Amino acid sequence: MHQYKAPIEDIHFVLDSLDYSKHCQTIGATEASDDMVEAILEEAAKFCEQVLAPLYQVGDQEGCQFDNGVVTTPTGFKAAYEQWVENGWPSLAQKEEFGGQGMPESLGNVINELGGSANWAWAMYSGLSHGAMNTLEMHGTDEQKEEYLTPLVSGQWTGTMCLTEPHCGTDLGLLKTKATPQDDGSYSIEGTKIFISAGEHDLAENIVHIVIARMPDSPEGSKGISLFVVPKLLNGEANHVSCGSLEHKMGIHGNATCVMNFDGAKGFLIGPKNKGLNCMFTFMNFARLATAVQGLSTMELAYQGSLAYAKDRRAMRAMTGTKSPDQPADLIIEHADVRRMLLTQKAFAEGSRMLIYQLGMFVDIAKQEQDSPEKTRADEFLGLLTPIAKAFVTEAGFECANLGMQVFGGHGYIKEWGMEQIVRDSRISTLYEGTTGIQSLDLLGRKVLSNRGQVLKKYTKEMQSFCKQAKSIKEMKPFTNRLIKMSKEWGWMTLKIGLKARKNRDEVNAACVEYLMYSGYAVLAYMWAQMAYKAMQALEDPNCENKQQYINKIQTCEFYYERLLPRTRGFKDCLLGGSKTLMQMSADDF
Amino acid sequence: MHQYKAPIEDIHFVLDSLDYSKHCQTIGATEASDDMVEAILEEAAKFCEQVLAPLYQVGDQEGCQFDNGVVTTPTGFKAAYEQWVENGWPSLAQKEEFGGQGMPESLGNVINELGGSANWAWAMYSGLSHGAMNTLEMHGTDEQKEEYLTPLVSGQWTGTMCLTEPHCGTDLGLLKTKATPQDDGSYSIEGTKIFISAGEHDLAENIVHIVIARMPDSPEGSKGISLFVVPKLLNGEANHVSCGSLEHKMGIHGNATCVMNFDGAKGFLIGPKNKGLNCMFTFMNFARLATAVQGLSTMELAYQGSLAYAKDRRAMRAMTGTKSPDQPADLIIEHADVRRMLLTQKAFAEGSRMLIYQLGMFVDIAKQEQDSPEKTRADEFLGLLTPIAKAFVTEAGFECANLGMQVFGGHGYIKEWGMEQIVRDSRISTLYEGTTGIQSLDLLGRKVLSNRGQVLKKYTKEMQSFCKQAKSIKEMKPFTNRLIKMSKEWGWMTLKIGLKARKNRDEVNAACVEYLMYSGYAVLAYMWAQMAYKAMQALEDPNCENKQQYINKIQTCEFYYERLLPRTRGFKDCLLGGSKTLMQMSADDF
Repeated sequence: MHQYKAPIEDIHFVLDSLDYSKHCQTIGATEASDDMVEAILEEAAKFCEQVLAPLYQVGDQEGCQFDNGVVTTPTGFKAAYEQWVENGWPSLAQKEEFGGQGMPESLGNVINELGGSANWAWAMYSGLSHGAMNTLEMHGTDEQKEEYLTPLVSGQWTGTMCLTEPHCGTDLGLLKTKATPQDDGSYSIEGTKIFISAGEHDLAENIVHIVIARMPDSPEGSKGISLFVVPKLLNGEANHVSCGSLEHKMGIHGNATCVMNFDGAKGFLIGPKNKGLNCMFTFMNFARLATAVQGLSTMELAYQGSLAYAKDRRAMRAMTGTKSPDQPADLIIEHADVRRMLLTQKAFAEGSRMLIYQLGMFVDIAKQEQDSPEKTRADEFLGLLTPIAKAFVTEAGFECANLGMQVFGGHGYIKEWGMEQIVRDSRISTLYEGTTGIQSLDLLGRKVLSNRGQVLKKYTKEMQSFCKQAKSIKEMKPFTNRLIKMSKEWGWMTLKIGLKARKNRDEVNAACVEYLMYSGYAVLAYMWAQMAYKAMQALEDPNCENKQQYINKIQTCEFYYERLLPRTRGFKDCLLGGSKTLMQMSADDF
Repeated sequence: MHQYKAPIEDIHFVLDSLDYSKHCQTIGATEASDDMVEAILEEAAKFCEQVLAPLYQVGDQEGCQFDNGVVTTPTGFKAAYEQWVENGWPSLAQKEEFGGQGMPESLGNVINELGGSANWAWAMYSGLSHGAMNTLEMHGTDEQKEEYLTPLVSGQWTGTMCLTEPHCGTDLGLLKTKATPQDDGSYSIEGTKIFISAGEHDLAENIVHIVIARMPDSPEGSKGISLFVVPKLLNGEANHVSCGSLEHKMGIHGNATCVMNFDGAKGFLIGPKNKGLNCMFTFMNFARLATAVQGLSTMELAYQGSLAYAKDRRAMRAMTGTKSPDQPADLIIEHADVRRMLLTQKAFAEGSRMLIYQLGMFVDIAKQEQDSPEKTRADEFLGLLTPIAKAFVTEAGFECANLGMQVFGGHGYIKEWGMEQIVRDSRISTLYEGTTGIQSLDLLGRKVLSNRGQVLKKYTKEMQSFCKQAKSIKEMKPFTNRLIKMSKEWGWMTLKIGLKARKNRDEVNAACVEYLMYSGYAVLAYMWAQMAYKAMQALEDPNCENKQQYINKIQTCEFYYERLLPRTRGFKDCLLGGSKTLMQMSADDF
């Protein structure tokens, strides 16, 4: 299969388009100089290309092995993790007080893309630690931070999030795991958790589980849930927590998805009693952003794979005349429909990269201690855009994975080529960390309608101001005109659903997924317009180097506006169909 | 996992809507009385539910085993095949002169749906024989028919189609397999074929390979290809054809996908020298229809699985108020977005069933010996609609498979539930037997534009006449108005592309996939309008039994028109974007 190469040039173009240097200065990340960022990216690229990518297929073939509670990761995973820790990657974007290097989260977010493209199943082991670290950092006591954060930051230990139970995932209010207070101030945790990614493995010496559970005197439902830290080893001794089995999954076989049994395991309360769900919501955006990255990683990986094939495989003659007269057939990249598939992947990947990197920068700002209008803006836009990034980018990522297979024809279905693994691995991304349906409900119900569309209005106003500014370059007009229209249509559509929803709450649920998809295309159109603008500005400089790169960006933007953005018209008309035809049939008549 | 049940009631509704009894009389299939058809369907349902469905998961888990040229199918496959042959299923729709039962092909087509839903990988073994039988029936000599057809019809032997080679699939003109004439009038076949479904297995005592190859003095390209029959055993002795290995695939593990080596195997010419591709085109529609069935089978299977789960799993409360006050949460089927997914599957499944069964009936008519306007019509519509059925129904089938997983949330990703297998198994359907891109090019280039849209015009005229007649029931008007508009838009869009294509041939390739998808939605809208009309007519009878079934059909039609059909607007606007943004970038700049 094609060997993954980190798209360093494209990444730098996006960082430039987002004024990343200035951002780092503004947030006080003075160490993240241009040179330093470049050096870090190059080192990360080297590690991902040379260490992680070669383990991509073996991880799938071997999977994780389970033997009486002991989980062994695929060949090479442990050595790669040791090297990862040795090179200091886990601590890159962590606070210095716990041994971190103090680089911005947004830079960690960029590295996540590379690791994710190279080997998502592997990258999940260190990825999961972030959830645990975030929880402890925000809600742990100083002692808890001292005890757990330092080894998590160094990568010596890893972490998990233990939420789901067999009968509940989305609706965590139904959870049954019990936490009984003990005389020493600790809690005895009793229950079964499922779908625990990296729940047990052989990469690190200890695993810190963040567990949600209910105390005996807690109310039922979501208001009776508390958060606990439950280490696998407590002062070096085994705690009563064990892996009961590994799930048999469609993909991401290199990652251990565990059933975890808590049999009177010793746990310690984090944050206030019964406020566990609230505590979790505070970092939900970060966790969802980390999952959105899988969509981006998938797009890039699938694009690289199918592009290499399209430049190598020959079939038929180009419609407008022979391109390779000395060959029995032309390269398939000469066929318009193959290009349609490749450009779809390319436009999604580069547009989503811009969105996801920008969200990483919002995280930096939202984490600033001092309140400011910038912080409020970052918080609000993070709230609005995160469900879009999580659901839209993963859905489009799955489309790109499938287009990748499609370019290969029948060969795409064969394991050796590696393309079908991308489809299987990426399929989870629209399910975990809140399905597309749940993200959509969050977007339309909570992030848009509950504030009467005020945050959305702020966002579309920014789109419009950008358009006003950008149309000073006349080649921008086709994009800015379209974007202004779209921003108005988006607002109008929202108002329309809002009015209907006042009479019938089902209207929100009935419209939400198509609303989210519409929103995703609109946001990516904004991202692309900004990149095209950046490229046009660069081309205005008569000494511009690397002209072709900028022309390429403008052409990809044109493709996006002509051939992908019009999909919104289908979404709009479908969602305006409303809830009637969904709800009129009784459940028995299905 | 949910146990598949054949949707007998829905099947009868479609057959009634298509006036199937009358059709059987018209084509002279007098034995296919209503009672007989009903009895056959019930027997087939029993076999599929009780014998094939239980082998669905085991086939995936075990897969086929390869040992030094010998292929062993999964546990139970051989016994099921023996029972299948014993019950006479292979010969159901075959001609009586070769031991067949003379039932119409259209009835075999219905049975294919059931077998395909129950166990597609298994059903492919007998499915592949059809290609071989069709070839021999149409182009074989009397002796060849005598020798090969009889044991194929009985199921004692199976057949394959050996077309693809490592370097060519779509572009068969590039093929390298050689056929050298021998003194005894036979040919020595030399070459390697890949992706040969059912190429080697342990179900039948002999395997008849239909092979395309080039003679030494044949011209290069597609005009130098001839067709040969190459049996695995020749007069009981091994021929020089062997399975070199099994492909490692994403799914359909129960079916053996073989690399076949022809090392001087003895073969016999079928049909005229150098006319092999033409011979194959004559039954291409039948083979593609058989693959389209996989899309339908997938839709039904995925729908049944996710419906059962949605009626069992509880999460959250319904938006408009509690439905199960005695339970901690409501069933997820109460949520509008879950219903959107279920109804999408249901509307696609029932609409596609109508299309595919109708195509089966066109096959019956097209196979009639005497020329007639009906035969011409059947031939033309078969040509027009087959690529649509192949590509649209399999693409929509894959969507339904994924929606099936999505309804399950994270559980959908776990093998035990069976939903992810549907995704993996169905993924091949948009690739083999001509990818979606190839079908689309066939539709727009060959079936529509090459006759200047005349066949399409005939078809849309029929849609319009139907609408004129159907609007006598006033509840039909929302459907007929929409359908008339759509039929005109379809024609207008075709004209527009046709005009552009005169100047630039890339326009066809650039528009074709979205054009096909648009056409698929339009055709299914026509199918649904006919079913709604049938249901409304039935409800006009004051003594109508089973009213609820008819109301259900009308409601599903409403859903289709409100929530799925508007997707055409996205396809239309995307395809009108044209070829410019696809072709302007040089291949090196991708």
